Amino acid sequence: MEAARPVLGTGRVADYIPALAAADPAAFGLALATVDGEVHGVGAWEQPFSIQSISKLFTLSLALAVGGDELWQRVGREPSGSPFNSLVQLETEHGIPRNPFINAGAVVVTDRLHSLTGDARAAVRDFLRAESGNPLLDSDSVVAASEAEHGHRNAALAHFIASYGNLENPVATVLQHYYDHCALTASCRDLALAGLFLARHGLRADGSRLLTRSEAKRINAVLLTCGTYDAAGQFAYRVGLPGKSGVGGGVLAVVPGRGTLCAWGPALDPAGNSVGAVAALDAFTTATGWSVF
Amino acid sequence: MEAARPVLGTGRVADYIPALAAADPAAFGLALATVDGEVHGVGAWEQPFSIQSISKLFTLSLALAVGGDELWQRVGREPSGSPFNSLVQLETEHGIPRNPFINAGAVVVTDRLHSLTGDARAAVRDFLRAESGNPLLDSDSVVAASEAEHGHRNAALAHFIASYGNLENPVATVLQHYYDHCALTASCRDLALAGLFLARHGLRADGSRLLTRSEAKRINAVLLTCGTYDAAGQFAYRVGLPGKSGVGGGVLAVVPGRGTLCAWGPALDPAGNSVGAVAALDAFTTATGWSVF
Amino acid sequence: MEAARPVLGTGRVADYIPALAAADPAAFGLALATVDGEVHGVGAWEQPFSIQSISKLFTLSLALAVGGDELWQRVGREPSGSPFNSLVQLETEHGIPRNPFINAGAVVVTDRLHSLTGDARAAVRDFLRAESGNPLLDSDSVVAASEAEHGHRNAALAHFIASYGNLENPVATVLQHYYDHCALTASCRDLALAGLFLARHGLRADGSRLLTRSEAKRINAVLLTCGTYDAAGQFAYRVGLPGKSGVGGGVLAVVPGRGTLCAWGPALDPAGNSVGAVAALDAFTTATGWSVF
Amino acid sequence: MEAARPVLGTGRVADYIPALAAADPAAFGLALATVDGEVHGVGAWEQPFSIQSISKLFTLSLALAVGGDELWQRVGREPSGSPFNSLVQLETEHGIPRNPFINAGAVVVTDRLHSLTGDARAAVRDFLRAESGNPLLDSDSVVAASEAEHGHRNAALAHFIASYGNLENPVATVLQHYYDHCALTASCRDLALAGLFLARHGLRADGSRLLTRSEAKRINAVLLTCGTYDAAGQFAYRVGLPGKSGVGGGVLAVVPGRGTLCAWGPALDPAGNSVGAVAALDAFTTATGWSVF
Repeated sequence: MEAARPVLGTGRVADYIPALAAADPAAFGLALATVDGEVHGVGAWEQPFSIQSISKLFTLSLALAVGGDELWQRVGREPSGSPFNSLVQLETEHGIPRNPFINAGAVVVTDRLHSLTGDARAAVRDFLRAESGNPLLDSDSVVAASEAEHGHRNAALAHFIASYGNLENPVATVLQHYYDHCALTASCRDLALAGLFLARHGLRADGSRLLTRSEAKRINAVLLTCGTYDAAGQFAYRVGLPGKSGVGGGVLAVVPGRGTLCAWGPALDPAGNSVGAVAALDAFTTATGWSVF
Repeated sequence: MEAARPVLGTGRVADYIPALAAADPAAFGLALATVDGEVHGVGAWEQPFSIQSISKLFTLSLALAVGGDELWQRVGREPSGSPFNSLVQLETEHGIPRNPFINAGAVVVTDRLHSLTGDARAAVRDFLRAESGNPLLDSDSVVAASEAEHGHRNAALAHFIASYGNLENPVATVLQHYYDHCALTASCRDLALAGLFLARHGLRADGSRLLTRSEAKRINAVLLTCGTYDAAGQFAYRVGLPGKSGVGGGVLAVVPGRGTLCAWGPALDPAGNSVGAVAALDAFTTATGWSVF
Repeated sequence: MEAARPVLGTGRVADYIPALAAADPAAFGLALATVDGEVHGVGAWEQPFSIQSISKLFTLSLALAVGGDELWQRVGREPSGSPFNSLVQLETEHGIPRNPFINAGAVVVTDRLHSLTGDARAAVRDFLRAESGNPLLDSDSVVAASEAEHGHRNAALAHFIASYGNLENPVATVLQHYYDHCALTASCRDLALAGLFLARHGLRADGSRLLTRSEAKRINAVLLTCGTYDAAGQFAYRVGLPGKSGVGGGVLAVVPGRGTLCAWGPALDPAGNSVGAVAALDAFTTATGWSVF
Repeated sequence: MEAARPVLGTGRVADYIPALAAADPAAFGLALATVDGEVHGVGAWEQPFSIQSISKLFTLSLALAVGGDELWQRVGREPSGSPFNSLVQLETEHGIPRNPFINAGAVVVTDRLHSLTGDARAAVRDFLRAESGNPLLDSDSVVAASEAEHGHRNAALAHFIASYGNLENPVATVLQHYYDHCALTASCRDLALAGLFLARHGLRADGSRLLTRSEAKRINAVLLTCGTYDAAGQFAYRVGLPGKSGVGGGVLAVVPGRGTLCAWGPALDPAGNSVGAVAALDAFTTATGWSVF
C-alpha cells in the first residue's frame, strides 16, 4: 500500500458513465488470498466497486467449463495491439474478435455462455457468490442502465459481429447480459476469493473441479498475454503475473499454485488500467518474488 | 520426440533464401539443459542450424546488460498483433517498433548494441561461444550474404526507422550486423546452454551476473508476450513458457528456475514457427507440468 | 446498348437481401436526358428498379440546399480508398465519415436532412416525384424491411457514429429513413430527369433554383471523386463523368451543361458497380466525347 | 493574385531539406497558357522554383506515351486516402502503389520510364525543355543531393516495392532518376506551357501527337482524383480542375480544351499543397467559371 500511495490519484477516473465518474480517485484496497482459502487485506479491501471488465475472466472460464474448446472457433487468443474497443481488427479478421478480453470478444463469450446456460447473467453472478461466500454480491442496476445508455460503441461492436454471423442470440439480449456482468459490484476480498480456482489449477472453493489443470493453465496464459488491454506487455514486464483489469479500477492477478491478489484504485492510466493497483502489484511482486518468470 | 513425429514435415520450410530452403523438413532435435549446466538431447540435437530470429533474444539481453533501460525509449514492449516484418505499426507509432522481437525492433536493438560495444556482431557471437562452450560457433557467411541479397523488406524497415531518426549508425552497417546475427549457426545443445542465464535469473555459465534478477524476469515476460511473432498468444496457450522462435526452425524456451529447452524442425506453420518444435514443446510441458502457469 | 451486351450478366447480382437477389442479371436500360428536359431511352429504360445508393446523391443535394455548408463539419469530402461500408476510417477519423457517399456518410447526411426537414424520407421522395414527373414513385416497403432485417453492419455504423456524438436523431429513426431512401424504386427515365438539376447548374425542372451554380459544381466534384465506392478512380478513368452508382445496378451520370445519363444492369463488379451500366457509359462517352476532361 | 494575397505566408514552407526551406513564403506567381500557345502571367511567374511532385505528371504521361497501358498492371488509379508517402497501403496491396502520384507510384513509373527509354532523367527534362521552349531548364543538383541525403523514407518505399518484385532497375538507380525529376527547376510560365498537351487532348507544342485523345482524357481523370495527395477531394471541390501539386509550392491545373494554369507560392497547407496557389486557382475558377463541372 505504501508503494501505491505516491501514485494514487495521478490517473483519471473513468468518466464515460456518471456512476463510475463519482469514484474517489484516492481510494485504495488490496486483498491477498491463498490457495487454502485464507484472505487478508489492507485499505478499503472490503469496499465494493464496479468490477467491469474483470467479469470477462469469469465469463470466459464458465463458457469454457460448460461448453469446452468450441469457443475458440468464434474468438481468438492473440493480443490485440489495439485499444480494447477497437473495430478495426474485427473488420480485418471478419468478425472473429482477437481475444476474449477485448469488448468484442467478451460479447461473443457472453453470447455463448447465454446459449449454453440460458442465463448468462445468473451464471456469472451465482459463481461469484459461491466462490466469494458473499450471497449479497449483485449487479448495480443503475450502472448497467447507464452503460446501456452510453453504450453506442458496444452496440456497434455487437451489430458488427452479428453482421458476420458470429452471434446466436439477439443483439439486445446479449448486450443486456454483458452490461449486467460489467455492473457486478464486488470487493477486493470477493474477487481474490472468486479467482482462486485459477491458482488452484481449476479447483473451486468447495473442492469440486471447474476446469482441468490444463484448461486453468491455458486461461492463465490468455490472461497474461491479453488481460490488460493493449498494455499486456507492459503489465507482464512490470508485474509478471496473469491478470485482468477493469475500468472500475480493479485488477485481479493470479499466482499459480499460490494464490491471488486483487488491488483496487479508481484512477486509470491512458490504457485504462488502474494506476494505483498496478503500482501496488508491481511493488508486491518485486518485494516477494511472486512472479511466474 | 514421439509427439513431434506425426507433424514433422507437415509445415513448409522457409524458402525466401536458398540457404534455408535446402533444410530437411523431417529433421528434428531437442535439447534440455538444467540450471546446473547439464544438457541432454534426442534426435539431431547436436546438428547446427541457422538460428535466425533466436539471435534477437541474445541481442536484446546484451543491449540491456550493457546499456540498461534507456533502450525502452527506442523500442516498445507490446505484442504486435501483426506479421513480424510489418511496416504498418511502425508508421502508426512513428518509428518506434512495437517490441524487440519483430524485425524492426531487432534492427533498433542491433543499432544500440553496436553503439554500445563497437561491434554488435562480435558481441553476440562471443557471448554464444562462451555460454555454449562451443568455440567454433560462427555466422554462415553464405546465409548472411543471401539474406542481404533478398533483404529488400528489411532494408525498407531500416530506412523507415532511420527516417524517424531512430538509428544511430548507417543503415548499411546496422543491416550487416543484423544479418550476421541471423546467420549464426548453432545446435539445440548450444542454444539450450546459451539461454540458461534466463533460467538462472541472470547468472552466466561462469557464475558471473549478466542481468539482475528483475531484468531476467522482465526479459522472460517480453519473450512470453512477444517471442513468437503474431502467434505469441497461441504459443503461451499451448506451451506456457517464455520462448523465441526463428525461421530456421528452432525454438528456445525458458523454464525459470529450472532450465531451458531448445527444439528444432525446419518445417514452419504460417506464422513462421516450427511445427515440430512447437508440438514437441507442447507435449513435453503437458507431460511434465513444466509451465509458468 | 450494343456495348453493354457482351458484359451483361458477367457480374454478380447483389444478394445480401432477397429482394435484390431476384433481379434478372441480363436486364439492361439506358436513358439520356438533356438540360431542356427531353428524355430518350433504350432497353428497359422505363422499368423501375431499386435505386439504393443513388439516393445518396439526392439526400446530399437536399441537405445542402436546405441547410448549407455546415454539413461539411460532420462529414468529409475525400475519397475513402476503402469499401463503402468500412468502419476502419470512421474510427481513425473519430466519427467523421470520409465523404457523403459511403454508407456512414449517408447516415450522417440523412440525420441532418431529418433535423432540417422533420421528415427525411418524404423530402427525398417528394423531390424525386417532382423532378421526374412520376407521382407514383415510392419506396418498396418489402425492400426497406429486408434491408433493416439484414442491416447489422449499417446499425453498427450508425451506433459507432452516435458514439462520437455525430448523430442528432435516435439511431433507429435515422436508419429507418435511410433504408426508405435506399428502397426507393425508380426507372432510368425517372432518375435521369431527377438528376438534371446538376447538369443545369442548380436549376430544377420548374426553373426554380435548388442550388447555386457553385454548389452544383461542387456536388459534381464530390460525385466524381467519391461517387462510385472505392472504384471512383477507375470510373473517372473510364467514363470521365461525375456519377453515382447503387447496388440495385443503376448508375446516374452528369454531363454538366448538357444532360444526364442513367444506365441500369443488375449484375455488379466486385466493387459494387453495375458491369453493364459502366460498360454502356464508357462506350457512350468514348463515342460521343461527352466527358468533363 | 489579389485572392491569394490574404493567405500568402499563412502556411508552412517545406523544410525537410534545406534547399526548399530557404524559399520565401510570401512569393507568388501565376501563369495562364491557352491551347494556341499564348502565355500570360502575374507576380513572379517567370521565377524558377523546384517543381518537385509536379514532375510526376510528366513522368506518367511519357511512360504511357512510350509504353502504353501495361503500366497499369504495376500501379493503380485509385485515390489513396492516405498521406503521399504512406507505406500502409503499399503493404495491404502487395507492392502495387495505389496511383502514380503518390511517391511509391511515381517510383514505379520512373522505373518503367527508365526501362523504356534508358534514361528517365533525360526523357523528362528534354520533354519539359521542348514544350516550354526553355533550353536551360534543368535539375538542381544541390536539391537532388539533398533529397537523396534526407530520403530514408523514399528509400524505404523503393526497397519495399522491390521486395514485392515491382522494380526492374536497381533501387539506387531508380531513386537517383526520381530525385533528379523532383529537383527540376522551372517557372510558372515553363510549366503552364509544358502541360498544354493535356489541354490540347494529347497534342504537343509542335503539333505532333504525344497521347491519343482518350489517353489525355484519362490522365486528366487520374489528376483530378489523385493529383493533390490526400486532399484531392478538397481540391476538386474548390477548384474543380485536374491538377498536380508539388511541395516546392507549385500547382499545375488543366482546363481541357482551353488551357492550363500554373500557380506558385512556397507556403504549404498540412496536406502539402500550396496555400496561395490553391487560393488563387479557387478564386480564378470561381470568377471565370473555368471548371470541368
